[in-house]
Amino acid sequence: QKLLTDSSKAVSIKYGDKGFEFNTADGKFQLQIQGRLQFRFATPEDQDPVTFDDFSGEKKPSFKINRARLKVGGHAFKPWIKYYWEYELSQSNLLNFTIAIEKWEWLRFQIGQFKVEYSRERRISSGEQQMVDRSVINRAFTLDRQQGAEFYGHLKGKGLADFNYWAGVFTGTGRGNTANDDSHLMYFGRLQWNFMGRYLDFEGSDLEIHEKPAGVLAINGVTNQSPYTRFSQAGGGSLEGYENGQPGQYRVNQANIETAFMYKGFSWQNEIHWKQIIDKFNNDYTDNLRGYYVQAGYFFHEVFDWWPKPLEMAFRNAGYFPNSEQDQTKKRENSLAFNWFFNGHKNKLTAETSYFNYDKTGNIPADEWRFRLQWDISF
Amino acid sequence: QKLLTDSSKAVSIKYGDKGFEFNTADGKFQLQIQGRLQFRFATPEDQDPVTFDDFSGEKKPSFKINRARLKVGGHAFKPWIKYYWEYELSQSNLLNFTIAIEKWEWLRFQIGQFKVEYSRERRISSGEQQMVDRSVINRAFTLDRQQGAEFYGHLKGKGLADFNYWAGVFTGTGRGNTANDDSHLMYFGRLQWNFMGRYLDFEGSDLEIHEKPAGVLAINGVTNQSPYTRFSQAGGGSLEGYENGQPGQYRVNQANIETAFMYKGFSWQNEIHWKQIIDKFNNDYTDNLRGYYVQAGYFFHEVFDWWPKPLEMAFRNAGYFPNSEQDQTKKRENSLAFNWFFNGHKNKLTAETSYFNYDKTGNIPADEWRFRLQWDISF
Amino acid sequence: QKLLTDSSKAVSIKYGDKGFEFNTADGKFQLQIQGRLQFRFATPEDQDPVTFDDFSGEKKPSFKINRARLKVGGHAFKPWIKYYWEYELSQSNLLNFTIAIEKWEWLRFQIGQFKVEYSRERRISSGEQQMVDRSVINRAFTLDRQQGAEFYGHLKGKGLADFNYWAGVFTGTGRGNTANDDSHLMYFGRLQWNFMGRYLDFEGSDLEIHEKPAGVLAINGVTNQSPYTRFSQAGGGSLEGYENGQPGQYRVNQANIETAFMYKGFSWQNEIHWKQIIDKFNNDYTDNLRGYYVQAGYFFHEVFDWWPKPLEMAFRNAGYFPNSEQDQTKKRENSLAFNWFFNGHKNKLTAETSYFNYDKTGNIPADEWRFRLQWDISF
Repeated sequence: QKLLTDSSKAVSIKYGDKGFEFNTADGKFQLQIQGRLQFRFATPEDQDPVTFDDFSGEKKPSFKINRARLKVGGHAFKPWIKYYWEYELSQSNLLNFTIAIEKWEWLRFQIGQFKVEYSRERRISSGEQQMVDRSVINRAFTLDRQQGAEFYGHLKGKGLADFNYWAGVFTGTGRGNTANDDSHLMYFGRLQWNFMGRYLDFEGSDLEIHEKPAGVLAINGVTNQSPYTRFSQAGGGSLEGYENGQPGQYRVNQANIETAFMYKGFSWQNEIHWKQIIDKFNNDYTDNLRGYYVQAGYFFHEVFDWWPKPLEMAFRNAGYFPNSEQDQTKKRENSLAFNWFFNGHKNKLTAETSYFNYDKTGNIPADEWRFRLQWDISF
Repeated sequence: QKLLTDSSKAVSIKYGDKGFEFNTADGKFQLQIQGRLQFRFATPEDQDPVTFDDFSGEKKPSFKINRARLKVGGHAFKPWIKYYWEYELSQSNLLNFTIAIEKWEWLRFQIGQFKVEYSRERRISSGEQQMVDRSVINRAFTLDRQQGAEFYGHLKGKGLADFNYWAGVFTGTGRGNTANDDSHLMYFGRLQWNFMGRYLDFEGSDLEIHEKPAGVLAINGVTNQSPYTRFSQAGGGSLEGYENGQPGQYRVNQANIETAFMYKGFSWQNEIHWKQIIDKFNNDYTDNLRGYYVQAGYFFHEVFDWWPKPLEMAFRNAGYFPNSEQDQTKKRENSLAFNWFFNGHKNKLTAETSYFNYDKTGNIPADEWRFRLQWDISF
Repeated sequence: QKLLTDSSKAVSIKYGDKGFEFNTADGKFQLQIQGRLQFRFATPEDQDPVTFDDFSGEKKPSFKINRARLKVGGHAFKPWIKYYWEYELSQSNLLNFTIAIEKWEWLRFQIGQFKVEYSRERRISSGEQQMVDRSVINRAFTLDRQQGAEFYGHLKGKGLADFNYWAGVFTGTGRGNTANDDSHLMYFGRLQWNFMGRYLDFEGSDLEIHEKPAGVLAINGVTNQSPYTRFSQAGGGSLEGYENGQPGQYRVNQANIETAFMYKGFSWQNEIHWKQIIDKFNNDYTDNLRGYYVQAGYFFHEVFDWWPKPLEMAFRNAGYFPNSEQDQTKKRENSLAFNWFFNGHKNKLTAETSYFNYDKTGNIPADEWRFRLQWDISF
């Protein structure tokens, strides 16, 4: 077997932000390998309560491996042909696979399966979150991972004229589906104004202690037709009050406004969501769902010397307001978390307590306290 | 814990034809790691039509990750004790695992699960094919991957006396089965005459632009008794017109003649298949299936200067002729493909159009055009 | 994206006892990668007979990949923060995932999913066993892998005052379960006296040819309440005569005494087990199960020059005595094995023959001979 190309190239190795990293001397090939384990203890149970029954079920304190990830990325043939795949070892699921062409900053392209940048909360890696996990509204509004193609880029003008954009087309059937359900696709767009003239990454907590403020104002929109009314890591699924749909049954239109801001150890993020579900098989019967969250954190060491440097306190308030005949339960979450960053997001301990308060119209309220402790470590 | 052997050995790294490669200084241990992603768009649908109904079903254009492979190989303890495993990340399937003893060229041995060398088309890696995928006859005739043991070797005499042989015994129950269904095994043999006195690898397209012609004439035979009438990556299955069998229900005898040839950018391959299925549980009721394909490609840059150097054009004609009471549909495929080799088979784009034409005895014909676009990249 | 830590560190590589190994120059990060394949041929079948029916069923000689493992370990941030995960590629199961804090020898801590050190036989890696596989009593008494947290350490005094201890709390629901079934946990303790003043690792065969004798006397105890009456790699399950339980149905108390000894090529190990199953849902109906094995091996090269150096002979006798209304079958196993160690446990061939003899009270006995051949290779 002859080799078609020069097959022998010296390689150097280092340990970097994405694990062990191998680079060829000519800069054409790169391989990064990183693992991540996330252990979680939760009581009385881990999941956010979804229906009223969840408040009365038997409580089972859980200790578990919540995430066990193998992440492999790098570039091949050119520094700007980038690849990435991520595998969930504990579930044996291929989560991400992408090839990206990133030759120009203002016009990039990627193909594969990845988290749509529709929602800041979901887009932030589970290893770089500020709280133990995402808010109570994530379940209803996230697009999670989708398969398709996307253009995106950074448009940098003078001063505050600093924008990012994303425009994608997806099959709209969620993670793991290999074919579309019908001929309708998912169309997605995001426009982001970096209103302080500086890009702010998808990452929780102001670990960098920004000396200059960085902020984001983004609007997102998406439309899709599929059997599904919600998405998760497991793929497409159904919200409460919806049956598993037929191919092309639900037209779903969604939009949100997102803000984020970081400065001197303080971080803020907020999303306001709207979602419309149209049942094409039942006279275009239409529901409207709304939700929001606000979240803020601070390294109090910035103002109090006695406060430990690696310790951050964070708070979140979230509300979910469905409006369907089947489910009109308003849900509210208030959470308080403390992060101890041994080594940034790569090795951190999070303690979090949440209070859930559900209010069914014309019915008695239900509430629950939950405590969770989590250790997240990358290597 | 003490070490039984000298446990500390310096290692050098390079990037080669099989990805990043690690070698100990003493030459005893080697590790190669390579990933591969294959993205495919297909319309009106990806699969070859199997039955008549496939022509009238709803058409769903598909975009998907078709293959996501992790390939790990090398040698251990001795340069001639070779290991290899390949995992399909998107399906969480272990495809290959082999240990090979390759001390002598004329007598080699391997054990494990691997693609039986019964059919050139199937044996060529999906990453080194000339068309987007295998022909319409692959479904009916391939043995795919089997578990067992095999002897093989290269017998090199003077001039044109240049032969390769393979002889294997397998459980005959396909990929992923951990036990045989009964006490009957699969026996396989292949004899290959390299009639130009040069070995030609299992690989599509004459990317090397052979200066001297290389050719293969091979005959293959196999016999097996199992519940299955066909095999695929998913393991054992059933052809149309056959039920899922009982252990030991079907005795299947198969043979084919294969030719292949490459010279100055031109490549040719061809197989003629025969398959006999004997239902041992129904009075040895017997069917005979026949099929063939011819396939050729050319880098026209060899004759026209204006033709781009990385561009190959290829054509395939295939026919499938079952002869069972249940299914006498003659199937024909004609496909035209264009390959753009950015970096050989490691990074290539293929556009292909196919025309399927089914002819049912005493019935109206059915036909379909299909278009597929595929990007295959290894890193 | 800024880096929070010094992200660039030189890395050196070597090949060691745990495969290819990468170390940063500052000693903070380490990565080890190793694969392992185990091929097995068995006739008339691979599994130990479990019930009487197993003696009369159709015999299917099996050849299979019995284990295909990917093992990744090392340390991160500190030399004493150790991680390890092990994935079974042929079943797509995450077997082990642990983070261990091993700063002090006398007080260590680990969290995750791992083999509980309850039984020497089970704790020894399948790649470092003396026979082809574990004895007939393993099925009934092993705790296999559990999820939880454990303290352990080595207490070394003068002379023979040399102890190891383990104390763990687990969910008690076996591999792969992400939540406990109820609020009852599994509590485990092990006290080990290294009565010759030397630690003896969990490993079969005296490959090191100990010049000074090393021995272990250990007592183990565990209590658990769960739906399960046995555990295996597949997770929780049921012993013969027990239905799949409800959450919290079975209180199981277990204890064993274990000895092990190695000296000049001779190795000995032995366990005596007791297990009590209390059905909390049926008036605390109680069963008592007993079992034992003794196992010994010797490199006869130590006394006979003509005996090949890499060849070990080993023998095992095991007995299982359940005492429930549903199952009072006494089971006996006698096995004889020959190991040829090409490269220690990393590359070895084992031939084993076993004789099973079942004695049902007031019933005719059943017996079976079995032969197995196994090749285990790590790389």
